[in-house]
Amino acid sequence: MSHDLDWIAADWGSTRLRLWAMAADGTRLAERSSQPERAPRTPAEFETILRALAGDWLERTGTIVACGMLGAREGWVEVPYRPVPCAVTPAALTRAPVAAADTRPTLSLHVVSGLSQATPPDVMRGEETQIAGFLAKNDGWDGVICLPGTHTKWAHVSAGEVVSFQTFMTGELFALLSEQSVLRHGVAEAGWDADAFADALSDTISRPEKLAGKLFALRGGHLLDDLDPATARARLSGLLIGAELAAAKPYWLGQNMALIGSDTVAHPYAEGLAAQGVTVLRADADDMTLAGLRAAHAQLAGA
Amino acid sequence: MSHDLDWIAADWGSTRLRLWAMAADGTRLAERSSQPERAPRTPAEFETILRALAGDWLERTGTIVACGMLGAREGWVEVPYRPVPCAVTPAALTRAPVAAADTRPTLSLHVVSGLSQATPPDVMRGEETQIAGFLAKNDGWDGVICLPGTHTKWAHVSAGEVVSFQTFMTGELFALLSEQSVLRHGVAEAGWDADAFADALSDTISRPEKLAGKLFALRGGHLLDDLDPATARARLSGLLIGAELAAAKPYWLGQNMALIGSDTVAHPYAEGLAAQGVTVLRADADDMTLAGLRAAHAQLAGA
Repeated sequence: MSHDLDWIAADWGSTRLRLWAMAADGTRLAERSSQPERAPRTPAEFETILRALAGDWLERTGTIVACGMLGAREGWVEVPYRPVPCAVTPAALTRAPVAAADTRPTLSLHVVSGLSQATPPDVMRGEETQIAGFLAKNDGWDGVICLPGTHTKWAHVSAGEVVSFQTFMTGELFALLSEQSVLRHGVAEAGWDADAFADALSDTISRPEKLAGKLFALRGGHLLDDLDPATARARLSGLLIGAELAAAKPYWLGQNMALIGSDTVAHPYAEGLAAQGVTVLRADADDMTLAGLRAAHAQLAGA
Repeated sequence: MSHDLDWIAADWGSTRLRLWAMAADGTRLAERSSQPERAPRTPAEFETILRALAGDWLERTGTIVACGMLGAREGWVEVPYRPVPCAVTPAALTRAPVAAADTRPTLSLHVVSGLSQATPPDVMRGEETQIAGFLAKNDGWDGVICLPGTHTKWAHVSAGEVVSFQTFMTGELFALLSEQSVLRHGVAEAGWDADAFADALSDTISRPEKLAGKLFALRGGHLLDDLDPATARARLSGLLIGAELAAAKPYWLGQNMALIGSDTVAHPYAEGLAAQGVTVLRADADDMTLAGLRAAHAQLAGA
């Protein structure tokens, strides 16, 4: 039977654990995810959470290939970064020491290494697996890959290597400003205004120095002009992504570009880049993660 | 006796209430402050907090002249903004309806109006009183006043009027990034590094579009280079204030400048401006607030 559960793929982000039950031939059999109320703090807590979510799958396999924050310093097991430039396929794996001897089944946990860059100092954990997955599906592709998220990454890929990359805190800034700052009173939790987004993005992409002064105008607009909260949300996003695109210009200007992300996070970037005349190849983040973990598992199986 | 308590000056900021016992001739007799655990939400809660802090002072006077957030929409009594350009001296006062009839002594609460600007939309509450105080002490002064804080204000003052102003969220951004974001792991709560501040400020004042990309390098520096947390703190401050100075350039370039603030918040701005060859006249925020409230009280007494 080719479709028996053979191994488990795991993506452990900063807030969410996602597991896939995988057949030996790489077919995705099932999927589970959980969002712990707080981040696990000890290896034992990581293992408890994983065992709870994997549940009955562990009766059939203890082999897990994982990427993401479980390999960080404060994670399950610290996996050293690999400095760029370095090859992204096949992904480098570290076998993690796990499980007290009396805990059954014994886990065989393999964690994909993150990437680091010396100058300017930068790190990624998880995105390297998406990049590996993208290259597994797009053999020989060269160019720049943007991976929007809490910490958006821009990676320059050439000849199967990540040459350099840069992280922008745009997603985290958006969350902090829209949920924690004084702007929260006037920024909706959902909703959109495409024109407001485009205008704001155009403002900061052409004059990024204006960002610092444009933010509070959302507060003023709320108090004085009854600015629509959905419009304010789109405008805030446009201001921040416009500033990011201004800073990241060397990454996208005249480059072959791919954009890896869910529709929700990737759409504003695609719109913003399109407004600059940049066409991007789109790919789904979960699909790329799984493709990268498949490539890592294949390397493991062939070793 | 000229030094009997005659009236109470009150500065109600977003987090702190400060009261001064005042003599009829404007002498400061005593000072009290409190930081409620949460912001009051109803007029009755505001009044309870004020009565508790003023305590025995209210046996001698019920006259209070106040500025700040108690005049906001979510405050004690909403006091309309005065649109700029408008005169700041003498300050405009609104008599607030207060106190159930059976509460003794009856309060006579007078609240200074905040300022608003139509385009770009902007507001201030509290800083207008400091500006009024500064002009009371510096008769005929023209130029630009910077008031650093959670929401830093830059105000263009001419012929006793605020002509225009702009708010920057630099202080709130610094707090959010250093306390709530992923950078918190590597940014100290205190400590300073003057060279790191100057370098970072120079970076973003000359190339403000780099801000979005420079922030995460603090995280990378923490993980890869053991970046000193006090250095990271100074660098974060420099990046943000540099971006603000770049955006606020029309306010300070070639202008006669004053800086109103406590040493802690004003010092980095003074350093940053000095690096651009701008000399500033310094004034203490509390002193200016009290001078502004004195001017408002004099207007009240004369009316």
